[in-house]
Amino acid sequence: MRNHGLAAWHRVMAEGNPPDELAKILADEAVFHSPVVHTPQVGKDKVIAYLAAAGQVLGAPGGHANFRYVRELVDGHEACLEFIAEIDGIAINGIDLISFDRDWLIRDFKVMVRPLKAIGKLRELMAAELEKK
Amino acid sequence: MRNHGLAAWHRVMAEGNPPDELAKILADEAVFHSPVVHTPQVGKDKVIAYLAAAGQVLGAPGGHANFRYVRELVDGHEACLEFIAEIDGIAINGIDLISFDRDWLIRDFKVMVRPLKAIGKLRELMAAELEKK
Repeated sequence: MRNHGLAAWHRVMAEGNPPDELAKILADEAVFHSPVVHTPQVGKDKVIAYLAAAGQVLGAPGGHANFRYVRELVDGHEACLEFIAEIDGIAINGIDLISFDRDWLIRDFKVMVRPLKAIGKLRELMAAELEKK
Repeated sequence: MRNHGLAAWHRVMAEGNPPDELAKILADEAVFHSPVVHTPQVGKDKVIAYLAAAGQVLGAPGGHANFRYVRELVDGHEACLEFIAEIDGIAINGIDLISFDRDWLIRDFKVMVRPLKAIGKLRELMAAELEKK
């Protein structure tokens, strides 16, 4: 089974996660799980805020952080996309663990990052980006 | 394609990752990537040391840390296994990202953990466990 949601995600990601484009590929009841905080962020608007901020911090593939996906596992309506990036000389390695609903909209988006130093850096940059709103 | 390595991993994991059993399912040139440190640990002996220590810290499924897998993505020779656990009241959520070689031996094992508090806890416990050797 082809995962139809993944192509849409890659297209929006390539544009740097603009909020109006994110709105088209997220389910209304979407949930975001940050690498830093335990509590899930529930609802489309919150997920848009986080993914748009991540787009600003990490940039589009090929952007300032040299963000790029290096491995992709697809299993039905689930996908695990491994990425690498580098910010201020700190190597970042992480995954986007994405669940799509029956209409191929994103209903659950979980991010994990390694190593520890990279999480500290991302937390700092994401907090600054989210405070701009 | 059925992933033949995964059943072997689950069997060894259920026993708490005994080193002699790990040795049977790891490739000689296996590599381990910790959630904490950037530098990969290269070679079967090092990978055994880390996975055996993780087995002690997190325990077998159903053990003291209530470790259990909650999601499994399988794509050819790659697998992403999401787990949850709880240690000293701290909720741990993570993934084992495993690559198998053509003989279904584990050649690359990467762990990522969230949230930040859980990584701190795991780092502390893993360091204590590895120092016992």
